[in-house]
Amino acid sequence: MKKITLWALASSLFIACTTETKKPEVASNTLSSEEKIDSTNIKQLFNTALTKGKSYEWLRDLTQNIGGRLSGSPEAEKAVLWSKELMKNVGLDSVWLQPVMVPHWVRGEKEEAYYTINGEKKNVPICALGFSIATPSNGLTGEVVEVKSLDEAKEMGDKLKGKIVFFNGAFDNTLINTFQAYGGCVGQRFSGARVCSEFGAKGVIVRSMTNGIDDYPHTGTMGYGDIPKEQYIPAAAISSRAAELLSNDLKTNPNLEFYFKQSCETLPDAPSHNVIGEIKGTENPEKIIVVGGHLDSWDLGEGAHDDGTGVVQSLEVAYLFKKNSIKPKNTIRIVFFMNEENGTRGAKEYAEQAKQNNEIHVAGLESDAGGHTPRGFSIDANGKNTQLVKSWKKLLAPYGLHDLIKGGSGADIGPLKNDEITLVGYRPDSQRYFDYHHTSIDTFDKVNKRELELGSASMASLVYLMDKYLYTEDKVKP
Amino acid sequence: MKKITLWALASSLFIACTTETKKPEVASNTLSSEEKIDSTNIKQLFNTALTKGKSYEWLRDLTQNIGGRLSGSPEAEKAVLWSKELMKNVGLDSVWLQPVMVPHWVRGEKEEAYYTINGEKKNVPICALGFSIATPSNGLTGEVVEVKSLDEAKEMGDKLKGKIVFFNGAFDNTLINTFQAYGGCVGQRFSGARVCSEFGAKGVIVRSMTNGIDDYPHTGTMGYGDIPKEQYIPAAAISSRAAELLSNDLKTNPNLEFYFKQSCETLPDAPSHNVIGEIKGTENPEKIIVVGGHLDSWDLGEGAHDDGTGVVQSLEVAYLFKKNSIKPKNTIRIVFFMNEENGTRGAKEYAEQAKQNNEIHVAGLESDAGGHTPRGFSIDANGKNTQLVKSWKKLLAPYGLHDLIKGGSGADIGPLKNDEITLVGYRPDSQRYFDYHHTSIDTFDKVNKRELELGSASMASLVYLMDKYLYTEDKVKP
Repeated sequence: MKKITLWALASSLFIACTTETKKPEVASNTLSSEEKIDSTNIKQLFNTALTKGKSYEWLRDLTQNIGGRLSGSPEAEKAVLWSKELMKNVGLDSVWLQPVMVPHWVRGEKEEAYYTINGEKKNVPICALGFSIATPSNGLTGEVVEVKSLDEAKEMGDKLKGKIVFFNGAFDNTLINTFQAYGGCVGQRFSGARVCSEFGAKGVIVRSMTNGIDDYPHTGTMGYGDIPKEQYIPAAAISSRAAELLSNDLKTNPNLEFYFKQSCETLPDAPSHNVIGEIKGTENPEKIIVVGGHLDSWDLGEGAHDDGTGVVQSLEVAYLFKKNSIKPKNTIRIVFFMNEENGTRGAKEYAEQAKQNNEIHVAGLESDAGGHTPRGFSIDANGKNTQLVKSWKKLLAPYGLHDLIKGGSGADIGPLKNDEITLVGYRPDSQRYFDYHHTSIDTFDKVNKRELELGSASMASLVYLMDKYLYTEDKVKP
Repeated sequence: MKKITLWALASSLFIACTTETKKPEVASNTLSSEEKIDSTNIKQLFNTALTKGKSYEWLRDLTQNIGGRLSGSPEAEKAVLWSKELMKNVGLDSVWLQPVMVPHWVRGEKEEAYYTINGEKKNVPICALGFSIATPSNGLTGEVVEVKSLDEAKEMGDKLKGKIVFFNGAFDNTLINTFQAYGGCVGQRFSGARVCSEFGAKGVIVRSMTNGIDDYPHTGTMGYGDIPKEQYIPAAAISSRAAELLSNDLKTNPNLEFYFKQSCETLPDAPSHNVIGEIKGTENPEKIIVVGGHLDSWDLGEGAHDDGTGVVQSLEVAYLFKKNSIKPKNTIRIVFFMNEENGTRGAKEYAEQAKQNNEIHVAGLESDAGGHTPRGFSIDANGKNTQLVKSWKKLLAPYGLHDLIKGGSGADIGPLKNDEITLVGYRPDSQRYFDYHHTSIDTFDKVNKRELELGSASMASLVYLMDKYLYTEDKVKP
């Protein structure tokens, strides 16, 4: 062979290595002296997360040793006790449980579905939607009417009578942010059964909420609204691939009969808890910055990205403060909310108690959009505070946090909303999120350690800045 | 149970959905009329990629039906023919093979390694480094000297004589861009054997190049430089977990003996090809914008992220142009380069032929940093063109392309460098890349369809802008 010169090979490595150098958006000489301090402290938070982070091992424990933890389940209560112990171990100044009654829906036996076409039985991956009633114990059979939206179902009107309505609206994959695509479809899942029962449909099956074509049914919550209980009809999700196949088969066999069986039921409300721990503020201990995610999850998988990552990242914010001896001026309160998935009872109880106790919440940060690589924050605050948060972009952009945008925060801190509080949602990259969302494959192995830790550090950095700059006396209302 | 109100549940969904809305950084009313046309065309490129993209299925075929394709291997030649057919099927105006002789290193039998401590045999995941010689056929045994860098090895000097040198320099995980961490370590892998052979070491083992602690040896190229052939010593990579364990065991048993066996060899150079196809320019057909990745890969996995994603994304640029009836002014030439991994012979041959044929290359774009979610582009060009590319940020940022930075482009287009050409490297998120890099798990299932397609569209958008704005007569030199 010709001699491979050192130069030739090294040059290729050199290009690979040096050209990736990512400089902060703003050179350090454009920072004020105070910003330089902030820049150094933020770097230190990231360094600690990336070299001494604990969130990944916490998440492994939660997801693999407890697993899925639907509100009211034994696993959810195990997770509550686990969380309390963990918060104590991290050394928070105080840790307590906040009681809350939660809905208690149970899935029952594994669901079953199929249809027969040209003599061939096709099994369909299916799962009941949260709060759905069961089918009769021997299942439900019916002809299928396919629609793409709630509006289309309403237009069909009486033609739905006695049918199983098949909602097959797909994600709009041209939307770059996948949560927008979810927003465009999820109404079918949430309200499909309510709408169709009014026209006498006997059941509803919904295409799973996902960007891709896969074999996993994606569960999620639904509601019957104010219709009488005797008009409730069962609702389930089928995998996106099954939806594509069924739609195709209906073109040639419009009268095919679909069968599904599920034995889910809603039991009486169960006692549960939000898990709360805090680092007391040194200057304004009565002023609270709340940081949280939700501890409950759906039952099918391990609740890894939804929202195991959010709770371990929230606690890691406190860990990173302690590890770096950062003593916050305000109280940093970590909350693992219960029951985000089907009721947000924990969130409501937390806000209600805060009001009753005249607590002063100056800011909130929630992580409930998965544990993927950081992209930014969504800010729900008045104009002045929104601008202040946006002004930190030069400090945050070097860590991939470019998207500092006006928007909502999250379902669990949302009830704290008032004119003065600054609520923020952590926004990781959304591309992979709905691959796993509410399925059996939302498992620990889908989470990348560095991406998780970068998220913790991103959140800690924002909390550091909020603690330092956000609070002024005139902004706070009890 | 308490009634779950529609409002309560819907509000949580509403927050999740609407608050993620990601607006373009610059509102459309701040765009010029020409930029509005560009914005519309770019959106259309993304829409097509995300709804009619082909790259994912192409990648499935390449990785799962051909697999790893090291230069000189039968798989590499199969991949060449596959690529030629594929380019024709996409409908490129002309497709051809460019002959190039490539190094032909073969791994031989699966490598083996272990050491014994306190009577316990510990097997070590190991693989030979590219271009390494074999051990003796019955393997190599020796005491181990651990060092953390090439400098430390040089300082040890004669103490390395007769030893197996263990390079255990780990990635600096505090570096946000993982390619920088790679750059800080890869010298051990590339030059470790050369440096240590000069001091009479008998072999080298290197900690795998990765951020994490895992069980996969990560291969990669090395070089003996100008040392005489009889002084060559075998070099291999061990998994990062094995490196941690071995380092620990050496603390208590500094005289433990390490055994490894490999049967790799370098055969005579083999004939191979770059695969080239182009869309002829309508106004300046003699001016070329080259877009490419590398077709070869290491042999251990399927060469998915390195660099199957790069070649299918490059071809998808042409597919997206055709599908949207975009007729470029300049010629868009897609190149699947051969032999990036161990020699960059394809890159050199391509540049050499371009020079000999007086071809005019106005720009180049390379994708060789994995198929993860888009982050930006690294620009290697003169000041004027660098500024021009940076000025497109408002058009690109809505797609997550915030990082438009001065830097290198890539190993395969790098040899085309001159004062006038604009060379650009596509830069996806780097966090997961070294989880898979050069291992048996760089496989198709690690690639996310949307992330891959977003990359194709990102590249197509940049090529669209370069084709429209970059070229002016006074910038071009043959």
